[in-house]
Amino acid sequence: MNASSVQAFLSDDIIARCGERASKYDRENTFFTEDFEELRKSGYLTIAVPEQFGGRGMTLADVCREQRRLAYRAPATALATNMHLYWTGVAADMRKMGDSSLEWILREAGTGEVFAAGHGEAGNDLPLFLSTAKAQKVDGGYKFWGHKIFGSLAPVWTRLGLHAMDASDPKAPKIVHAFMPRDTKSYTIKETWDVLGMRATRSDDTILDGAVVADKYIARVLPAGTADLFVLSVFGWAEPTFASIYLGLAERARDLAAAGVKKRTSLALTRSMAYHPEIQRCFSEMQLALEAASAQVERVAHEWSIGFDHGMQWPMKLVAAKHNAVEAAKKVVDLAMSVSGGTGMFKTNELERLYRDVRCGGFHPANTILAHEIVGKTVLGIDLGEQPRWG
Amino acid sequence: MNASSVQAFLSDDIIARCGERASKYDRENTFFTEDFEELRKSGYLTIAVPEQFGGRGMTLADVCREQRRLAYRAPATALATNMHLYWTGVAADMRKMGDSSLEWILREAGTGEVFAAGHGEAGNDLPLFLSTAKAQKVDGGYKFWGHKIFGSLAPVWTRLGLHAMDASDPKAPKIVHAFMPRDTKSYTIKETWDVLGMRATRSDDTILDGAVVADKYIARVLPAGTADLFVLSVFGWAEPTFASIYLGLAERARDLAAAGVKKRTSLALTRSMAYHPEIQRCFSEMQLALEAASAQVERVAHEWSIGFDHGMQWPMKLVAAKHNAVEAAKKVVDLAMSVSGGTGMFKTNELERLYRDVRCGGFHPANTILAHEIVGKTVLGIDLGEQPRWG
Amino acid sequence: MNASSVQAFLSDDIIARCGERASKYDRENTFFTEDFEELRKSGYLTIAVPEQFGGRGMTLADVCREQRRLAYRAPATALATNMHLYWTGVAADMRKMGDSSLEWILREAGTGEVFAAGHGEAGNDLPLFLSTAKAQKVDGGYKFWGHKIFGSLAPVWTRLGLHAMDASDPKAPKIVHAFMPRDTKSYTIKETWDVLGMRATRSDDTILDGAVVADKYIARVLPAGTADLFVLSVFGWAEPTFASIYLGLAERARDLAAAGVKKRTSLALTRSMAYHPEIQRCFSEMQLALEAASAQVERVAHEWSIGFDHGMQWPMKLVAAKHNAVEAAKKVVDLAMSVSGGTGMFKTNELERLYRDVRCGGFHPANTILAHEIVGKTVLGIDLGEQPRWG
Amino acid sequence: MNASSVQAFLSDDIIARCGERASKYDRENTFFTEDFEELRKSGYLTIAVPEQFGGRGMTLADVCREQRRLAYRAPATALATNMHLYWTGVAADMRKMGDSSLEWILREAGTGEVFAAGHGEAGNDLPLFLSTAKAQKVDGGYKFWGHKIFGSLAPVWTRLGLHAMDASDPKAPKIVHAFMPRDTKSYTIKETWDVLGMRATRSDDTILDGAVVADKYIARVLPAGTADLFVLSVFGWAEPTFASIYLGLAERARDLAAAGVKKRTSLALTRSMAYHPEIQRCFSEMQLALEAASAQVERVAHEWSIGFDHGMQWPMKLVAAKHNAVEAAKKVVDLAMSVSGGTGMFKTNELERLYRDVRCGGFHPANTILAHEIVGKTVLGIDLGEQPRWG
Repeated sequence: MNASSVQAFLSDDIIARCGERASKYDRENTFFTEDFEELRKSGYLTIAVPEQFGGRGMTLADVCREQRRLAYRAPATALATNMHLYWTGVAADMRKMGDSSLEWILREAGTGEVFAAGHGEAGNDLPLFLSTAKAQKVDGGYKFWGHKIFGSLAPVWTRLGLHAMDASDPKAPKIVHAFMPRDTKSYTIKETWDVLGMRATRSDDTILDGAVVADKYIARVLPAGTADLFVLSVFGWAEPTFASIYLGLAERARDLAAAGVKKRTSLALTRSMAYHPEIQRCFSEMQLALEAASAQVERVAHEWSIGFDHGMQWPMKLVAAKHNAVEAAKKVVDLAMSVSGGTGMFKTNELERLYRDVRCGGFHPANTILAHEIVGKTVLGIDLGEQPRWG
Repeated sequence: MNASSVQAFLSDDIIARCGERASKYDRENTFFTEDFEELRKSGYLTIAVPEQFGGRGMTLADVCREQRRLAYRAPATALATNMHLYWTGVAADMRKMGDSSLEWILREAGTGEVFAAGHGEAGNDLPLFLSTAKAQKVDGGYKFWGHKIFGSLAPVWTRLGLHAMDASDPKAPKIVHAFMPRDTKSYTIKETWDVLGMRATRSDDTILDGAVVADKYIARVLPAGTADLFVLSVFGWAEPTFASIYLGLAERARDLAAAGVKKRTSLALTRSMAYHPEIQRCFSEMQLALEAASAQVERVAHEWSIGFDHGMQWPMKLVAAKHNAVEAAKKVVDLAMSVSGGTGMFKTNELERLYRDVRCGGFHPANTILAHEIVGKTVLGIDLGEQPRWG
Repeated sequence: MNASSVQAFLSDDIIARCGERASKYDRENTFFTEDFEELRKSGYLTIAVPEQFGGRGMTLADVCREQRRLAYRAPATALATNMHLYWTGVAADMRKMGDSSLEWILREAGTGEVFAAGHGEAGNDLPLFLSTAKAQKVDGGYKFWGHKIFGSLAPVWTRLGLHAMDASDPKAPKIVHAFMPRDTKSYTIKETWDVLGMRATRSDDTILDGAVVADKYIARVLPAGTADLFVLSVFGWAEPTFASIYLGLAERARDLAAAGVKKRTSLALTRSMAYHPEIQRCFSEMQLALEAASAQVERVAHEWSIGFDHGMQWPMKLVAAKHNAVEAAKKVVDLAMSVSGGTGMFKTNELERLYRDVRCGGFHPANTILAHEIVGKTVLGIDLGEQPRWG
Repeated sequence: MNASSVQAFLSDDIIARCGERASKYDRENTFFTEDFEELRKSGYLTIAVPEQFGGRGMTLADVCREQRRLAYRAPATALATNMHLYWTGVAADMRKMGDSSLEWILREAGTGEVFAAGHGEAGNDLPLFLSTAKAQKVDGGYKFWGHKIFGSLAPVWTRLGLHAMDASDPKAPKIVHAFMPRDTKSYTIKETWDVLGMRATRSDDTILDGAVVADKYIARVLPAGTADLFVLSVFGWAEPTFASIYLGLAERARDLAAAGVKKRTSLALTRSMAYHPEIQRCFSEMQLALEAASAQVERVAHEWSIGFDHGMQWPMKLVAAKHNAVEAAKKVVDLAMSVSGGTGMFKTNELERLYRDVRCGGFHPANTILAHEIVGKTVLGIDLGEQPRWG
């Protein structure tokens, strides 16, 4: 299972170059333009696109492995690229399951379109299921108003996935899922992205001010609060890939820390700090966290890839994997810092960035708050939509 | 991976009957005699013995699954039986790897011999690697003196696995591994087993007072402090099976707790306690712990079963899986108690026993203390035998 | 602050004798009769009663200290006795604050009456504030129906504190707080107490089947869901004393564990197991937990004793102290077990009982589930009574 | 205990102004010059200096309270200032205890000298007790070589506390503690300070290249590895003040988070996010952590201030308080981030800085690694100097 039957796609060289650029992007708060161009040229953006559409046809498990390798050196690059990759994976897997409604995504991705996700919103703790944005049916499409946040790949996307509420029938509000072409009118990107970590993703705001998206780019119109294969597939691809990115980041932190303690000496020890029992204990805790989270994430990705039927347990399985991976990664990075004895705090030390990058993991949907609700209710056999929500 | 290609061996009926007897064994502190006879008759004691020796040829992964099912209802029965099962698995897998030195275990197990483990000792925090017991070469075998503890299956074993130190050459002390037949002279079983949990295992003391074991039952003579395939295989079989037992126990606790909160109501809620958000949070934490530990344990068992080569990482992989599984199980049972609102404390409630049984998991080797050392040192590339041990 | 200006009340001898009897009470599941008689004769039951009523006038802080000393050796004895002690403390402090409505408790306690608490109920997650029991006004008093659980001191109480709902006006249900004399008719004590830990408390069920309590023993009639000084004072006395009992228990576990590791040796160490760094780490975690929880509990007890005004923060302060103390104690006992290397599991080892006793701490009100609600809402300035409860 | 008999020293206005400047210092990585000048003018630098030397004579408990207030808005300012404050406190308390050897510090501080700490070193996990720097007795003083790190207040100190090893007698190496005047020759300050958090402290490196310090500025010459009142007093003042700074920081994070959730709404809630039960749970965990750590830190500061005799327990008490406070603060800030739903990640949000600042707490001596050793060994009655260190 560790061993892969599929050859790695990304060359170690590309990953190394991305790794070398990471600290500059972070420091200057700029988009990972050179990385993106290298990845694009290498064909990385179509690894999840089936071969007949010009891609590599990699499964979710394959993509997780690649993303984890990339994130080991360049987590922000992997994270932003993930937004595109998961849309192609969603479309590919839905098609494999017999739903070709998003086949156009595969065709367009095959010819170079770049997809991104504009689902983040303030004032909505159930992302995808509800929306503060407004959708209105117009001739030949839908018109959108709203304020979207966390829109990674802002400088380069050509199709922005987004959703909004059509409440024209107040008794039956609907969620409209659309992909807005870059050349659409009546929207603006607001450069707000100056944050703690994962800075190179440039996850700027998007203001929709009556932007019209044609019917062919309307992916779904669903009753508000409900999920179908489309929504499930978004979680199916997003959670394990997010999780893999943070695992890669954590493995990097552990390895940097290990290299560090092997070089550090102390007057009160006969050998390096690697022989300090409390340091060893810290590495034990790192590894115990990684062993569990790795197994869980790889298993979920594998099960999704082979079409395993978890039925109603799928959302729980997916968010649990991402939640545990991110919590493990936070723990690992914190311990890596501890054993660094303070050197990890310096801007010249990669750990300093990893400590900031890792914290972002808790915010991708399902965030910590929502993950507990999904997992807890699922175990108890309670539908997420049951009202009242609690009590 | 959840789905098994291999059919379950134990019938639900047998497991249910073991479950029904569990509380009586616990209350009366008696050996699980009826369970043992049923399991023996069913062929359960030879599931890991290859078919040509009269067994079922189940892999470690298969055995883990069976033990987890059994432990779901009768954890002490599964735990004691495990001592026998792992010896048969060790012998089977060594043979598969080309080392037939323990083939006799398979033959004897196939004809009804019952194996147990007499490795527990006070005054030795590196079990298997060192020993407070003394071995002396005599004509045709070895003679043993020592005090062994935690000897599960005391009433029924016919071959007791044990180890002792032969320090006749003080510069090169050796560990002698033997299997002592029940009818050996000069040993006594001391009925000391009256403990917190896993009471039905009857893990009594064994006092070796010059007991002689013939050469054919001497499994290994190894330099003290070292491991070979034999020692590794003991960990290979013991850790994942122990882990699976505690996972089964934890799943039972979760399910009992879930059934409980669905029945409990409260004046301050409109529905059952299952709709209390803090109760849901507790189940989320239980499930998050189980998802990770299950994936890790099943993966390690699978990797061992397919002969995956983890090289020097194997001991770490094995003890990490057991450690995480036991810690997860302790957490789950504690949370199951919490949501029971106090009813779980009553002797009439199975949770009461599970709370006691689960605590034993931390003591099987590698215990918590040693697990951290093995994991931490392995991550840092430090050999467990390096001296001084720390500093 | 560690140092006390007040001399200890209980002699070391009495405590030692209680400690010697503890394991027998536990094993035989019997009430702590001999302890109770010794404590009664010593005057311990009136330490919180003001001197003018024949007591010692000890403050909450003093009583916490005594209970902690007693619990160090005999936690169940301290816990059951606590039910009586806190009622006397409640009455004393209310009187000090100018409310003499419970002065009769002080007089009666001074002349030997024994108070207990019958507030535990199934089906009510807001103890004291709501009730599944029914109260009906009758001539000269109230009549009660209901099923009370967790009634410590069942064999010896002469006044059972209890509460029930008078819903005669459905729009304005009221909670009636009463103290039922032992010789009341129409109630029965059902001997259900056979549980995991704190067995000597004999916290049996009480079935109220139309029991009539005279007006003079009606302490309060309050709107359902509300608290006044009486209710606050119950928390004021119960939480810090409960907390102190579990701290005493935890200190005992730590000390037993420390004595144990100093005696245990290992072949792989040059000195005792106290020199094993991972063992030291376990003691560090125990002590870190105890330092924090001790300071918090002693501070809250002191602040209550001096009449510090925490205003609306008081309930939060009180339940937070008890919650943290119990969680710390659970952690300490678990670590004490870990370092025992398995010997702590034997019935002959006091740790075995402490491991069972400590788990009860989570169930005393406010239990873990409720504690989080009280603390979280208080920090956010949300009244516990606000409806809907969440969302 | 919460209530203070001593009036606050710093005005809310000064603190507010420091708070307003904090983000600029952080962003531009500059020293808190304006804050420092305001604090100096206000007399803050002499609050711990006895009145007869021109100060305010505040106790450790008082100083902790002031530092916590200041850190609530400007943690880096409080932290750097702390280096000066603790030296004055050390000198004042030693004098109170009858040791006037550092009285000159009080006189000089009274006349405007600024003290700092140059004890941080790479390659030494037992700070203060050993040193990688070299001291050599010369006529009229000592000569120093070495590389010191984490030297807060680099731009403004006039007396740098430092220590080095005099190994002229290899059998009896000694630690020389000195205060180097700013105008000393043969040392350089290297501007290395560009780090994760607490950036305004400007904790640059100091290279000692034969710097000579006159005898009058030699505070102590102690056998290596030992402590006396001087060393204990450094811990006595440093630990509780460090702890208080991180508590202040954590309280700020909690309060910002609470204000945030009260303003945030969600489509799936009828009221603000403050009514989301999982959000409430997060605040419960924050408060539970703060209640315990606050009580512990305030207690230790109080006990030190009143001269309570903890004997050999003092080092444990001190580092335990700092350790628990920092761990609590890290937890609080992480939870504050969680409930921010992502807004806390933006550079415009103060939480973003607090998340970075708080991580520094683990590195002040005694760091996490050392704290466990001190606490664990103390509980077990093992002297920190016993050799071998473990095993």
